[in-house]
Amino acid sequence: MKDLYSVNQLEKEDIQKIFQLAKEYKERFLKGEKKFNDLRRCSILLVFFENSTRTRTSFELAGKILGADTINISASSSSVKKGETLYDTVKTLEALNSDFIVIRHNMSGAAKIVANSVKSHVVNAGDGTNEHPTQALLDGFTILEKKGSLEGLKIAIVGDILHSRVARSDIKLFKKLGAEVTLCGPMTMLPRHYEALGADYITTDIKEAVKNKDVVIFLRIQLERQDKPFFSTLREYSIKYGLNQELLKILKPDTVIMHPGPVNRGVEIQSELVYSSKSLILNQVENGLFIRMAVYKYLLS
Amino acid sequence: MKDLYSVNQLEKEDIQKIFQLAKEYKERFLKGEKKFNDLRRCSILLVFFENSTRTRTSFELAGKILGADTINISASSSSVKKGETLYDTVKTLEALNSDFIVIRHNMSGAAKIVANSVKSHVVNAGDGTNEHPTQALLDGFTILEKKGSLEGLKIAIVGDILHSRVARSDIKLFKKLGAEVTLCGPMTMLPRHYEALGADYITTDIKEAVKNKDVVIFLRIQLERQDKPFFSTLREYSIKYGLNQELLKILKPDTVIMHPGPVNRGVEIQSELVYSSKSLILNQVENGLFIRMAVYKYLLS
Amino acid sequence: MKDLYSVNQLEKEDIQKIFQLAKEYKERFLKGEKKFNDLRRCSILLVFFENSTRTRTSFELAGKILGADTINISASSSSVKKGETLYDTVKTLEALNSDFIVIRHNMSGAAKIVANSVKSHVVNAGDGTNEHPTQALLDGFTILEKKGSLEGLKIAIVGDILHSRVARSDIKLFKKLGAEVTLCGPMTMLPRHYEALGADYITTDIKEAVKNKDVVIFLRIQLERQDKPFFSTLREYSIKYGLNQELLKILKPDTVIMHPGPVNRGVEIQSELVYSSKSLILNQVENGLFIRMAVYKYLLS
Repeated sequence: MKDLYSVNQLEKEDIQKIFQLAKEYKERFLKGEKKFNDLRRCSILLVFFENSTRTRTSFELAGKILGADTINISASSSSVKKGETLYDTVKTLEALNSDFIVIRHNMSGAAKIVANSVKSHVVNAGDGTNEHPTQALLDGFTILEKKGSLEGLKIAIVGDILHSRVARSDIKLFKKLGAEVTLCGPMTMLPRHYEALGADYITTDIKEAVKNKDVVIFLRIQLERQDKPFFSTLREYSIKYGLNQELLKILKPDTVIMHPGPVNRGVEIQSELVYSSKSLILNQVENGLFIRMAVYKYLLS
Repeated sequence: MKDLYSVNQLEKEDIQKIFQLAKEYKERFLKGEKKFNDLRRCSILLVFFENSTRTRTSFELAGKILGADTINISASSSSVKKGETLYDTVKTLEALNSDFIVIRHNMSGAAKIVANSVKSHVVNAGDGTNEHPTQALLDGFTILEKKGSLEGLKIAIVGDILHSRVARSDIKLFKKLGAEVTLCGPMTMLPRHYEALGADYITTDIKEAVKNKDVVIFLRIQLERQDKPFFSTLREYSIKYGLNQELLKILKPDTVIMHPGPVNRGVEIQSELVYSSKSLILNQVENGLFIRMAVYKYLLS
Repeated sequence: MKDLYSVNQLEKEDIQKIFQLAKEYKERFLKGEKKFNDLRRCSILLVFFENSTRTRTSFELAGKILGADTINISASSSSVKKGETLYDTVKTLEALNSDFIVIRHNMSGAAKIVANSVKSHVVNAGDGTNEHPTQALLDGFTILEKKGSLEGLKIAIVGDILHSRVARSDIKLFKKLGAEVTLCGPMTMLPRHYEALGADYITTDIKEAVKNKDVVIFLRIQLERQDKPFFSTLREYSIKYGLNQELLKILKPDTVIMHPGPVNRGVEIQSELVYSSKSLILNQVENGLFIRMAVYKYLLS
């Protein structure tokens, strides 16, 4: 596999191999082996047309730990301002003979276009409302660590499903690993044809959605991606769809909660619950590093 | 010592050990040993919520010379824009298992909060109007190089004492090393209770302040931190409190002048005096590199 | 040679040595030797007062491939915003004991001033409308690769000659290597005294300019550097001076076309011709990497 732009490219076997690599890196790293040579002599261009501290930092650090040289290219400093097309930008970057191009772009499908245009390995770090495959991998890996397997697990995804690339990638990956996926959100944030996303159930009722679930994923409200005020207020969203003490009572004792971050405290999750014992949010961040190391390694070999 | 967020944490012995490390690094570096392994396999996150070329570059270069991987995270590209709290930002960064977090923040006390929240070593690169401990260390080290000792030295600090984190850290450090400290500035820039800062004298009379001093430190006028036009004009400040030829005549022949930079030429220091033979300004910059190398090393061991 | 701020500094012999170094690096790199030790233990400060993805990335990657540590310093994050002078900025950077300073600045002559002010090696990455010597070197190297020699070659440069630092450096370098240089553009974009630039011919007639040429270089229209609307429309410029199918017919079969990038598609070059078989645009980008590696190496030794 040259590139990773969509979970569609991944067979169950690919996912398991990436998880195995991530597991090994994590074990070795936490035992004190903090530098590897797997990407020595490689260069990685991190091309972010949208800002993102955590994703960019995670990809950058993962590359450095593996011994690669990394170069940041952000939209604000790039020739994009000079009116250069995406195609010209990446052809130019390819001419620099870099081994990897990690790209985040606000256009759905951008990563695949780039992957098909260049010799370098391309990793999708989020393209519009389309996909965010490494987020799905780190989510799946984090669940696996906690639950042993995804086979037969009941997972709910709550929030703005319609505009979420995380949801799109998560659903595909969880289904490939045998989980049952329920989508939940206000009507305006749900797709009309949810089956197209591959999910099993859909509901606007949060209580029904989270009942008897093993995992509940709360999505970030991306205010910047909403075309207009979608709901009367954030407060109303928070009351109806956020995690609070009342909703907590409905969860099974062993239900875990997740969020791709950054959390809008008091909106998706009530402030005191963000790092509760049920929360795997920091595990997701930590595992993101090892999953990205694993993806680099998997594409290279 | 896990962190360095305040000069208060440093005993005289700590300071001397850091100075000794810096001295050794400087000697070895200037002899041509330009790369060290003391921080090999370590990662440093440089989290700057306020811009600063010289401080960020100094910390970054110091880390790289010691063999560490460094990652820049600036406020403008960070999730802070997405409304993330400082606490969530640093918990996220900690989850990346970085060894060091160097933080500059506009809130006084931010560095200590971060230090107490994460396992990583935290270094304060300036927090609001509170402290800037590595600046104090490099100032002290630069004086030591020139004068042999700080014991009994007479040091004046001139400018906006009230809003200066450099002044706060300098005073504490100079007192620990046995110097006598005089503060000077216009009334509106002086604290009411200067004893609380640990200084020995305070005056609004610049001529009195600099007379018989071994060292005079001119602080940068931080226009951006002033709530309103504090003085009729910068020109007036310059005439009353800036270093010019007339004031120069009052100084002892061996008085040295310092400034944390960047200098507002013609305001704190008249242009032709910035790099005069009395000036240690470039020595401060150079020593900043070795002091930061020493601080990394000291916290790690 | 300590610095490279102008093609004027280069004798024909220097150019040939740099080309030889670049050729060797390229061969070794393309054979799989992707990391070198020539700049190990060195640090490079990339000081860009004007944004530029491709130039900055090329210099950064070139340094990293040679084993150097690189540090980005951009105008937006720098003390320039605080009113610091260029001189103070570079004196400060010099005090950090860096080996190289690569500088791009909007003031013509800035690189030479810096070079004469500091001990570090200084490389001009573009200064105002004055020079861009590494662009000229990579252009010359790319032509050499394709044509075997520049001796007696006929080269046309088309566009805004008046404001182009690329044109200024290209003309000087091509003449030193024995080529004949023709300048072409609308009257308002041509210098009154073109002989001062060292060119052989000048014309406003594009058809005359490109006829019988071995190489035609289209310059980027730098809208940001024009003082006022210089032409009725970009469309008119495109029709009169852009490369289109009609103009293509006038070119010799073996004429190659070049552009420093990024191309304004449909302005300087019609979209479908940007990566045609005649185009060396991506070769220029690729060779830029090896030329910059060669320049670092040449200045160091």
